[in-house]
Amino acid sequence: MKIKQTKEVELSAVTMEGASDVCMRQLVTEADGAPNFAMRQFIVDPGGHTPRHHHPYEHEIYVLEGSGTVLEGETERPIAAGDVVFVEPDEIHQFRNTGGGPMTFLCLIPNSAKSQPVLHVPEPVVSGCDG
Amino acid sequence: MKIKQTKEVELSAVTMEGASDVCMRQLVTEADGAPNFAMRQFIVDPGGHTPRHHHPYEHEIYVLEGSGTVLEGETERPIAAGDVVFVEPDEIHQFRNTGGGPMTFLCLIPNSAKSQPVLHVPEPVVSGCDG
Repeated sequence: MKIKQTKEVELSAVTMEGASDVCMRQLVTEADGAPNFAMRQFIVDPGGHTPRHHHPYEHEIYVLEGSGTVLEGETERPIAAGDVVFVEPDEIHQFRNTGGGPMTFLCLIPNSAKSQPVLHVPEPVVSGCDG
Repeated sequence: MKIKQTKEVELSAVTMEGASDVCMRQLVTEADGAPNFAMRQFIVDPGGHTPRHHHPYEHEIYVLEGSGTVLEGETERPIAAGDVVFVEPDEIHQFRNTGGGPMTFLCLIPNSAKSQPVLHVPEPVVSGCDG
């Protein structure tokens, strides 16, 4: 058995292309002996967001704190503390903090994720209209 | 994608032998399309506890609210909101709420759990000494 206080787990910046003002903690991983899936915590600062991306594995997410949106296809859906999000394999998704404080969530993935591709989807370009 | 508000998910009593004052919600399961693991929420009332038991699959637990103990072998270890507990396969474990309010935690298990045995371990009998 392992017991950890979340705040004692190392916090690192998420540097993946498309991420902005996001940090994460690896709470339970294969290194702890977890045979099937991993628990991570993400902290998104106000105005920050995770990459717009997709991959062949699922996410199971629990919002611990704050509020924001999750992109489902082309639609931004609101989320807040206490909400659960199941992201299916291969769905394009992105989490944005639209609140005034940190948005913190748990995100669990299968151990098989590490051998699977993660594909970044560029943000749509919003431009003025001269026509 | 599925988004659920936790409080809108059906709450049911845990009736397994050895459980006392425990309710649970199935937050993400195979019925949602989750291919690998399930997310459940447990709510233990003050003085309540989960069964003392073991099984061949792991738990990944995040304490959302309250405080209590988790039994590791014969030792009660303190836990509180924000703590993470990894229970290894086959470990005897039991969660007790020793605080004044509800103790709430997420508990994730692999989908394979449903075909595996769960073995209840009776509480030790504490008796007076007449000798």
